[in-house]
Amino acid sequence: MKTLLKNGTVVNVFTDSLCEKDVLIEDGVIIGVDSYTDTEADHIEDVTGKYICPGFIDGHIHIESTMMTPTELSKSVLIHGTTGIVADPHEIANVCGKAGIEYMLKASENLPLSVFLNLPSCVPSTPLDESGATLTAEDLMKFYDNKRILGLAEMMNYYGVVNGDKDVLRKIEDALAKDKIVDGHAPLLTGRELDKYVAAGVQSDHECSSFAEGSERIEKGQWVMIRQGTAARNLEDLIDLFDEPWNRRCILVTDDKHPSDIYNDGHIDAMIRMAGAKGKSIPKAIRMATLQAAQCFGLKRMGAVAPGYRADLLVLNSLEQVEVRDVYCNGVKVVNDKKVIEIKEPELDEAILNEVNNTFNVEKQSSTDFIYPEESNRCRVIRCIPGQLLTEEYIADINWSENNGIDLNRDILKISVIERHRNTGHRGIGFIQGIGLKKGAIASSISHDSHNIIVIGTNAEDMACVANCVIEQGGGCAAVCDGKVLSKLSLPIAGLMADLSAQELSRQHEHLMSTIYSMGSSEEVAPLMTMAFISLTVIPYLKINTFGLVDVTEQKQISLYV
Amino acid sequence: MKTLLKNGTVVNVFTDSLCEKDVLIEDGVIIGVDSYTDTEADHIEDVTGKYICPGFIDGHIHIESTMMTPTELSKSVLIHGTTGIVADPHEIANVCGKAGIEYMLKASENLPLSVFLNLPSCVPSTPLDESGATLTAEDLMKFYDNKRILGLAEMMNYYGVVNGDKDVLRKIEDALAKDKIVDGHAPLLTGRELDKYVAAGVQSDHECSSFAEGSERIEKGQWVMIRQGTAARNLEDLIDLFDEPWNRRCILVTDDKHPSDIYNDGHIDAMIRMAGAKGKSIPKAIRMATLQAAQCFGLKRMGAVAPGYRADLLVLNSLEQVEVRDVYCNGVKVVNDKKVIEIKEPELDEAILNEVNNTFNVEKQSSTDFIYPEESNRCRVIRCIPGQLLTEEYIADINWSENNGIDLNRDILKISVIERHRNTGHRGIGFIQGIGLKKGAIASSISHDSHNIIVIGTNAEDMACVANCVIEQGGGCAAVCDGKVLSKLSLPIAGLMADLSAQELSRQHEHLMSTIYSMGSSEEVAPLMTMAFISLTVIPYLKINTFGLVDVTEQKQISLYV
Repeated sequence: MKTLLKNGTVVNVFTDSLCEKDVLIEDGVIIGVDSYTDTEADHIEDVTGKYICPGFIDGHIHIESTMMTPTELSKSVLIHGTTGIVADPHEIANVCGKAGIEYMLKASENLPLSVFLNLPSCVPSTPLDESGATLTAEDLMKFYDNKRILGLAEMMNYYGVVNGDKDVLRKIEDALAKDKIVDGHAPLLTGRELDKYVAAGVQSDHECSSFAEGSERIEKGQWVMIRQGTAARNLEDLIDLFDEPWNRRCILVTDDKHPSDIYNDGHIDAMIRMAGAKGKSIPKAIRMATLQAAQCFGLKRMGAVAPGYRADLLVLNSLEQVEVRDVYCNGVKVVNDKKVIEIKEPELDEAILNEVNNTFNVEKQSSTDFIYPEESNRCRVIRCIPGQLLTEEYIADINWSENNGIDLNRDILKISVIERHRNTGHRGIGFIQGIGLKKGAIASSISHDSHNIIVIGTNAEDMACVANCVIEQGGGCAAVCDGKVLSKLSLPIAGLMADLSAQELSRQHEHLMSTIYSMGSSEEVAPLMTMAFISLTVIPYLKINTFGLVDVTEQKQISLYV
Repeated sequence: MKTLLKNGTVVNVFTDSLCEKDVLIEDGVIIGVDSYTDTEADHIEDVTGKYICPGFIDGHIHIESTMMTPTELSKSVLIHGTTGIVADPHEIANVCGKAGIEYMLKASENLPLSVFLNLPSCVPSTPLDESGATLTAEDLMKFYDNKRILGLAEMMNYYGVVNGDKDVLRKIEDALAKDKIVDGHAPLLTGRELDKYVAAGVQSDHECSSFAEGSERIEKGQWVMIRQGTAARNLEDLIDLFDEPWNRRCILVTDDKHPSDIYNDGHIDAMIRMAGAKGKSIPKAIRMATLQAAQCFGLKRMGAVAPGYRADLLVLNSLEQVEVRDVYCNGVKVVNDKKVIEIKEPELDEAILNEVNNTFNVEKQSSTDFIYPEESNRCRVIRCIPGQLLTEEYIADINWSENNGIDLNRDILKISVIERHRNTGHRGIGFIQGIGLKKGAIASSISHDSHNIIVIGTNAEDMACVANCVIEQGGGCAAVCDGKVLSKLSLPIAGLMADLSAQELSRQHEHLMSTIYSMGSSEEVAPLMTMAFISLTVIPYLKINTFGLVDVTEQKQISLYV
């Protein structure tokens, strides 16, 4: 069956140029980019006045952060022109271990969206964490024979790499020996320490938050993944990397993006649109998001509209607006005039579903669990930075007499992390600034990377109530005020993902977000996403886990009290 | 053992920029590019005022055309900064078959020069040829497991690819299935035919002789190999490909270059120098010859001075002049102040040596063998084009009465190809214009790709004499005048390569060339190299084999007589 896209303007990612050509497709492959007569194809699509470009590839995404199953995710990103993703299933792996990776492989099999996986390199993210599972180098090895496994995902333990931790290096060596790639994650690492990290074989980084950080990595041979997610939005700070020569070694990724943000703003298309709005070349940005993403991961004959390339391509109404009309995956039209054609959910066997659907093991909480001992008036407070995952340490004078230290005027709230995998009763307590809640409490079973229950609140009663709401749902998020559940989102799959359609999930998620905003927080803060990373002990500086505060730079627990 | 190159200026191929840095090497790998103190290394090399750049990679070379053994070749190109080559052993394969490939693999094992091979795709080059061996798809398969085999070499049978020849496509599919690359060779192929050829999986071309030809291939996703050899010198015609965006998809190759040319002009360094002299950016040209060559062939962590990269690097006295002072291969200094350090010849077992050293099977020639029947006064003459492998057909009135049709005034000489592998007695006869001999005759057992004996002469007696001189040597080249051998070069290895040092070979080769020039030919013509390609029936338009003239476009024998 030959399909002919006629009279379009092709975006050539080898030359960053536009050219009026017909595109002939057969058996999922582009067999010609030239001029053809209608008699030479079985099916003709007139795309006069439209643009034809390669499908976009998201080089680093955590499917769990979209809260969608792979099938629902594919529906919601395909309409935005994303035809391939490289996912790191380390959230579900932190909860379910190997079964989590198996679930992601099976649940993403034979979708129109090309789903590649990298193996979680740090489960748990650090020895400080209490996760639901541990993945050793041996655990990972068996997965490398799967063609959809491209390598080892973000090596967050740069401390271990730089200091020659045997188990960490073993995982890297295994990946390289299997001729696979190793992705990085090393915020603020620089100079000779960065050299050691790169020399170990780590080929990329998606944590750059400044041009200096990005350009240094490019000079040292790494691929820089320009990230624009929900909480971490680096595109504007890295906008100069869209210029030559830097753009030759950059690709575009979302990392962690909420369902409603994908639904409302878009995906990789939104990043290209943004770059264009900032005066950067759209064809070059498209090259970064297609051909270069493929090159970064050694994906052959993907990412271009050229003979012999896989027919993953887009028909755009507008180049400037990156307005996606139709999408072809492997030569088959899957999005027609902005509507996705029905996608069949892969069938999963019961054993895997049981593993990922029953992951909670924790007692009901009471308000006394959230009353802190008054040991000192000077305490360490976690200060959030809007639009970043980095946090600062701020030493505050705590007035214990009033609401056990909570001070709404200074926006000092309580934060607590409750172990939920093995019912150990472990709980970390702390204060946080920058979330902005004026009443009630919020909680989530999404708390990177161990995904225990994280709670932020303005009073102990609501904190207990919201935590229990999450527990009763067997995972999810909720907002509570004066003992009443104002909004909740159920995430039964490993406490991370919903079994809802993208649209319904997005609706519920938006309701939850607007509820949280109505409680005093703001979109600028991205409270749920920000909260989810306050427990990630690999991103500087001050974080919190099930044992209490953590000094990330020193990689050790520190006291709440100074 | 840590080696530190101190105070150099590093050429960064990721950014096309220069930067003053120290380079730290350990166990053959670059572990840091930063500032270091002397105490941090076991051995210090002060390279103040010098440039440090990655070693050059020749992306397409026939070792046989240099007439040197791999060991001698490595000596002669290392001093010019070439630390890696991708060789196609199809000359020796046409003579010795699989044994020829085995010889090249064994003879290039563990040399400081990284020698990679692509498997000859067309042995014989076409069904018209009488070669010493035939290589089937099955014959090739066993070689793919060798890590130094990168793929399938120049697929010259583009007619077969475009028209779906099963055996040809099978060879391509095998290479791609083994996750290897397929190099191309398709002079003048364009438009939809080229699309078909590229769509089959052919990733490169080294036969471009115009910007239009090169840019079309780049637009269609191929790598363009800019070639500057002895006879085929395309760099000047392709000079604009050194500009953006074209240079991103180009690499530099020599293909076929004579020993004295390498000895006198240089290798890849000469091409970069030439591009610089024509006003092109030297750092970009270096990027094309290093990082991009590695990318073209999927060679990981090669082709850059960056952490984790293989320590194949050069110390240059001058960037503009690309003046190579020292060369490091895998971290070991192999060229010191322009002098190559002794290289040990790999040991070869007798069986292989016997196979490649006894390849002649042909009777002694007599002058009557070179007297042509006078069937018509209008004959087809092969017309050479200086600096190109392309030939033209020229219909000439032949005056048989005088010297059996030879006409020195019009530079119409006799050319003959004598089968020499199986003593079939087959001989092709024809006329040639553009060689310029005024007396005597020249002959060579280097005649692409079948490597029968090719003879060009001004009279039958000298043609017989020079052919016999080649036969007596068991392979080689010679120049004869008035029955006297004026100069000869013995090439006992498959009739293609000498067992001489690069210097001695170069001396003898220069003597032979100057002798041929003294007989009337000129350097501009490159008579030996040009003669060697007159029998290659895959390069348009008029060629000659052991059965007579060949119309390359039609791929059929045609009569000498019109």
